[in-house]
Amino acid sequence: MNYEEVLRAIAGEIEPLRNVGRQADYIPALAKVNPDRFGICITTVDGEIFERGDVDERFSIQSVTKVFSLSMALSLMGEKLWERVGKEPSGAAFNSLIQLELDRGIPRNPFINAGAIVLADVLMSALAEPEADYLAFVREIAGDDTVGYDRDVAASEREKGYINAAIANMLKYYGNLENDIEEVLRFYFLQCSVEMSCRQLSRAFLPFADRKSDFAFGNVRLTSSQVKRINAVMQTCGFYNDAGEYSYLVGLPGKSGVGGGIGAVYPGRYSVATWSPRLNEKGNSVMGMKALELLTTYTSESIF
Amino acid sequence: MNYEEVLRAIAGEIEPLRNVGRQADYIPALAKVNPDRFGICITTVDGEIFERGDVDERFSIQSVTKVFSLSMALSLMGEKLWERVGKEPSGAAFNSLIQLELDRGIPRNPFINAGAIVLADVLMSALAEPEADYLAFVREIAGDDTVGYDRDVAASEREKGYINAAIANMLKYYGNLENDIEEVLRFYFLQCSVEMSCRQLSRAFLPFADRKSDFAFGNVRLTSSQVKRINAVMQTCGFYNDAGEYSYLVGLPGKSGVGGGIGAVYPGRYSVATWSPRLNEKGNSVMGMKALELLTTYTSESIF
Amino acid sequence: MNYEEVLRAIAGEIEPLRNVGRQADYIPALAKVNPDRFGICITTVDGEIFERGDVDERFSIQSVTKVFSLSMALSLMGEKLWERVGKEPSGAAFNSLIQLELDRGIPRNPFINAGAIVLADVLMSALAEPEADYLAFVREIAGDDTVGYDRDVAASEREKGYINAAIANMLKYYGNLENDIEEVLRFYFLQCSVEMSCRQLSRAFLPFADRKSDFAFGNVRLTSSQVKRINAVMQTCGFYNDAGEYSYLVGLPGKSGVGGGIGAVYPGRYSVATWSPRLNEKGNSVMGMKALELLTTYTSESIF
Amino acid sequence: MNYEEVLRAIAGEIEPLRNVGRQADYIPALAKVNPDRFGICITTVDGEIFERGDVDERFSIQSVTKVFSLSMALSLMGEKLWERVGKEPSGAAFNSLIQLELDRGIPRNPFINAGAIVLADVLMSALAEPEADYLAFVREIAGDDTVGYDRDVAASEREKGYINAAIANMLKYYGNLENDIEEVLRFYFLQCSVEMSCRQLSRAFLPFADRKSDFAFGNVRLTSSQVKRINAVMQTCGFYNDAGEYSYLVGLPGKSGVGGGIGAVYPGRYSVATWSPRLNEKGNSVMGMKALELLTTYTSESIF
Repeated sequence: MNYEEVLRAIAGEIEPLRNVGRQADYIPALAKVNPDRFGICITTVDGEIFERGDVDERFSIQSVTKVFSLSMALSLMGEKLWERVGKEPSGAAFNSLIQLELDRGIPRNPFINAGAIVLADVLMSALAEPEADYLAFVREIAGDDTVGYDRDVAASEREKGYINAAIANMLKYYGNLENDIEEVLRFYFLQCSVEMSCRQLSRAFLPFADRKSDFAFGNVRLTSSQVKRINAVMQTCGFYNDAGEYSYLVGLPGKSGVGGGIGAVYPGRYSVATWSPRLNEKGNSVMGMKALELLTTYTSESIF
Repeated sequence: MNYEEVLRAIAGEIEPLRNVGRQADYIPALAKVNPDRFGICITTVDGEIFERGDVDERFSIQSVTKVFSLSMALSLMGEKLWERVGKEPSGAAFNSLIQLELDRGIPRNPFINAGAIVLADVLMSALAEPEADYLAFVREIAGDDTVGYDRDVAASEREKGYINAAIANMLKYYGNLENDIEEVLRFYFLQCSVEMSCRQLSRAFLPFADRKSDFAFGNVRLTSSQVKRINAVMQTCGFYNDAGEYSYLVGLPGKSGVGGGIGAVYPGRYSVATWSPRLNEKGNSVMGMKALELLTTYTSESIF
Repeated sequence: MNYEEVLRAIAGEIEPLRNVGRQADYIPALAKVNPDRFGICITTVDGEIFERGDVDERFSIQSVTKVFSLSMALSLMGEKLWERVGKEPSGAAFNSLIQLELDRGIPRNPFINAGAIVLADVLMSALAEPEADYLAFVREIAGDDTVGYDRDVAASEREKGYINAAIANMLKYYGNLENDIEEVLRFYFLQCSVEMSCRQLSRAFLPFADRKSDFAFGNVRLTSSQVKRINAVMQTCGFYNDAGEYSYLVGLPGKSGVGGGIGAVYPGRYSVATWSPRLNEKGNSVMGMKALELLTTYTSESIF
Repeated sequence: MNYEEVLRAIAGEIEPLRNVGRQADYIPALAKVNPDRFGICITTVDGEIFERGDVDERFSIQSVTKVFSLSMALSLMGEKLWERVGKEPSGAAFNSLIQLELDRGIPRNPFINAGAIVLADVLMSALAEPEADYLAFVREIAGDDTVGYDRDVAASEREKGYINAAIANMLKYYGNLENDIEEVLRFYFLQCSVEMSCRQLSRAFLPFADRKSDFAFGNVRLTSSQVKRINAVMQTCGFYNDAGEYSYLVGLPGKSGVGGGIGAVYPGRYSVATWSPRLNEKGNSVMGMKALELLTTYTSESIF
C-alpha cells in the first residue's frame, strides 16, 4: 500500500476542516496551543514510517495516556482488574457521574474519567514509585527518553478539575479508591499531562498493532491475548459517547484525547497517530477523526 | 487453519456448560425447545464448511434478524437512515425505555428493540409488500427457499410483547413511527420469528465477511463500505449491554438472539453461527459465547 | 372574611395574565375551547358560595378527576392500595416512563398518569359497572345529576394517547395491571373526560374540606383520617413537577388538570375551584394558580 | 387540648419500637450515642410546654439545621435565592448526584445536601463572620446562649464526607459555588454539628408556628408570607424521598436529621421536636415519625 500517497490525498481532502471545531480551553496551557495544526504519522509493523504535517510538535496527549495506564494496570493485576472497573461502553459523556452512582462506584470502563482514576489508584498501590515508574514505561514504549510530564499542565488541570474531584470522592465513598483522594488525582492529572509528538505517539502505539513481537517494556508484559483485549476496549470505549460513530466511520481501535491527539491501530499492520486541536462536540479531534476515516476508506483497510 | 480440529476441541471444552443458564421461556414456543442443544457452523469465504453438533435443527433467530433488517433498511435509505436511529452503544438493557425518553424517541442503535422497531417501520414505508419482500431477501441471503416465518411464534410474541408495545407507542408519540403501531409491531415480531438452522445462519452471514463478492441479494445492494459499517455496528451494539464483554472475549462482530442463536463474522475469512438455547443474565447464549471465545483464542484469529 | 371583595380584587389583579400561556391543543375538543376564560368559585363549609367570572361554563376536568378516583379506590381497597402505587412526589413530568421503569412498574403516586391508570385498573376490578358506578359517585359528590362524560373527548384522547398507552403496557409488563390494557385505557380516558363547571367542581371538592360531615357518597365512604391523607397527597403530588412551587405560592392542597381546571381546599373552611384554559410550561393553569396564590395572600389563610 | 395526656399515650404506644431501626454510625460521634433514647417536646404559641422522655439531652441536630440556614439565606437574599436552588421535591435520596448533574448544578431544593451546601455558600458570601453570625442566629431563635457547635463532630463528618465533597465539586463545576470548596464544606458541616436538646429544638421551631409575633432574630427577619413558604418547603421536601409518606402519615411541616431529631410545626398552634436515634431506611427517626403520626391522629389536629 502506498501510504505516502494516501496521506497526501487525505491532507488535501481535510484542508477545509482546518478551522472547524473548537480547541479545549478550560486551562491556559491548552488554550494557548495553535488550534490550526494537523499532523499524522503511520508506523508499520515492518518499521516503515509515513508522516505528514506537524508531526514533531509535542502536545498534551491527555486521555490517550489511558491506553498506557490500562496496559500497565492489566499487566500488574491481570483479570482481577475487572472487579474494580467494567469494560462496557457507557453511552454517556466521559465525565458523567450518573452511571457511577447507579453502578455504586464501579466505572463502566477504564477510558472514561472515573475508570482512569481507578487505574491511577491501582497503579499507586502496586508501584514502588508511581510517577517515575509510569514515566519509565511510557518512555520505553515510545522508545524515547525525552518524553516527559508537563507539570504546569497537570497543576492547572487539578485546579480546574472539579468534576474529576467529584468522581474521585464518589469512588472513595463506594470503597473503590485505596489511596488518598488528592494524591490519586495528582497522579491521574500527571499521567494526562504526558507530552508527545505525533511521531512518538505513533511509535508508542505500535506494540498494540504488532502481533510478531512480545509486548514487554520494562516490567510491563502483556500476552498477545491481553493486547487484543485492550484493542477491543479501545474499539468499544475509546471515543466516549462517540464510540459508535467512530467505529462506524473509522473501524480501527483507537483512543482520543482532549489535547487533540488520537492513537489508533490496524492490528497486524500499522499504528497511526493524528493531532489537531480543534474538537467536535463530543471532545474528539475533527481533523483527526476525518483523516482516519479517509485512511480506512482510501486503503480499504479496516478491522471490519 | 484446521477448523475441523478446532471445533472438536471447542466442543469438548464447552461440554461442562451444557446445563448452565436458562432458556427464554416467556412464550410457549421458546419454552418448549430442548435447552441442551448446541451447534456451530463455520463457512469460509472460499466456500468450505466446518460444523459440529446440532447444525440442522431450526430455531427462532429472533434478534439476529436485525442484521438483515438493518442491511435492507440501509440499502433502501442510505445514510439518511441515521436520522431516525443512532449508532451508539446504549449501555442499557435491550428493552429499556429510559434512554428512548431522554433522547426524545431516537433509539440509540438499530440492534436494541426500539431501533429495530424503527427499522420495521422504515421497511413498511419503503417496501411494496413488506412481509413477502423481507422474506425473499432473507431467503436469498441464506441461499435457501425453505427459510420461513413461524407465525405462531410471532403471534405469541405479540401477545406478551408489552414492553415492545410500550416502545412503539413512545416512538409514535415522538413522531418516529410512520405506520400504524399495531401493524409495525406485527411486522417486527414476524421478522424475529424467522427460523433457520446453524448451517443456514452461517451461510446467511457470509456476505458480511466476504470482501470479494458484491453484496447483492434481490433489491438489497450494499457497498463494501456499508457492509463494513454494519459489522462495526454489530461489534459495538450487537450484544446489548454485554457488548464490551463480548468484544473483549470474542473479537468478532456478531449479533445474538434470545432464541440462543449467534451470527458472527471474521471479515475476509469466514462467517460463523452458533446455537444453544441457554442464556446468561444479559440474554446471550452461554455455550455460544464461550464457543466463539475459544474459536478466536485457539485460532489466534480475531479482528484485534 | 369578605371573600366577595377578595375575589373582586383577585379578578382585577390577574387580568393582565388573560393572554399568557397556551391552552392544551393536542386534541380538537380542547383546542376549540375559548382560551381566554376565567372563573373562580369558593364554597364554604357553612354553605356559602362566592363566585366570579365564567363559573357556569363546563370544561373537561381531566386530571382533577384523579382525586375522585383516588377517593373511590381508597374506599374500596383501604391501605392495601399503596402496594400498587406510591405516595411520593415524583420530581418528574406527569407522563414520564423513566421512574416507572426504575421502580419496576410501581407508579410514584396516584396523580401522575401511571398512578391514575393503576387506579382505573383497581376500579375496574372492584366495581360491578365501572363506568356507571364511577359517574354515579362523581354526580353524588358534585350534588348534580347532569354531570357526565364527554365521550368524544375520551375517544380523541385515546386516539392520541400514545404515552399513556406506553405506560399501560409497561404496567402490564410488570404485573401491575389486572385488566385488558385497552379497556383500562378507555376507562381512564373516560374518567378524564368528565365535564363540570367551576361551581360544580367547587361543590365536589367541599367534602375534602369539610371536617364536620361524614364523607359518604353512595358506596364511597372515607374516614376523616383518610380524607386528610388524600389532602396530603394532593399537597405533595397534585401539581406534578410544579408541586413545590405550587405549595410555596399557594399553600392549599389542590389538583390541576390540563383542561385548565384546579380544585383545592382549605381544610375546615372552604373548597375552591378555578378554571382558565391557558397553561404554564408544566401544564398548570396560569390564571388559576395566580388566583389561588392571591387568595391565600389576601386572606392570609393557608394551611401553613 | 390535653397534650399532657396525649404525650403519655404516645409514649406507651411507641414503646415497642424502641429497638427498631439503626442509628447513624458513619462517624464515631454519632455511633456512640445511646440509640434507645426518645424525647418529645411541644411548645404552644401561648407559651405552654409539654414534654416527655429524654428532652434535656443534647444531640446533633444535623439536617434539621437546614431550616435555620434557609431562614437566614431567605432573609438575606429574598426571592433571588431561588435562582440558585429549586423548591421542588426531589423524589431521590438526599445525597444523590444524579439530578444535580441532569439539572446542571441547580439543586432541587434547599433541604437535600446539595441545596444546603449552596445555602452555606450563600451565607458565606453574605455574612461578615459566617460561623459566629450563624451561631448567633441559632442561639437567638432557640432562646438559649448555651447552644453551640460540636467541632469534633464537624471534623469527623468532613473526614468521611466524600459524597458531600463530590456534590460541592459538582456545584463548583457548574458555577453554583462562589467560595472555596473546602471552606464551604467546613461551614456546612459546622452548621450540621449544632447541638440541641428536644426542648431547645422545640423552642427554636416555635417562630415557624407562631403567626402572632414577628419573625425577627438579630438580623434575620422574615415576613409572615416567607415563614409560611418555609413551612411549605418543609412539607414537600423536609423528609427527602420519604416526604410523601411523612405528609401522608403526619401532616405537619417538619424537618428530620440523621442524628435522630425532628422539628415540626402546627401553624398557629404549636411547634414540636422529637429525638430518637434509630432511623428507618430513608434516614428518618423511627420513633420520632411514629410519635408525630400518633400526635396528629390522637388530637385530630393537622394542616390537612
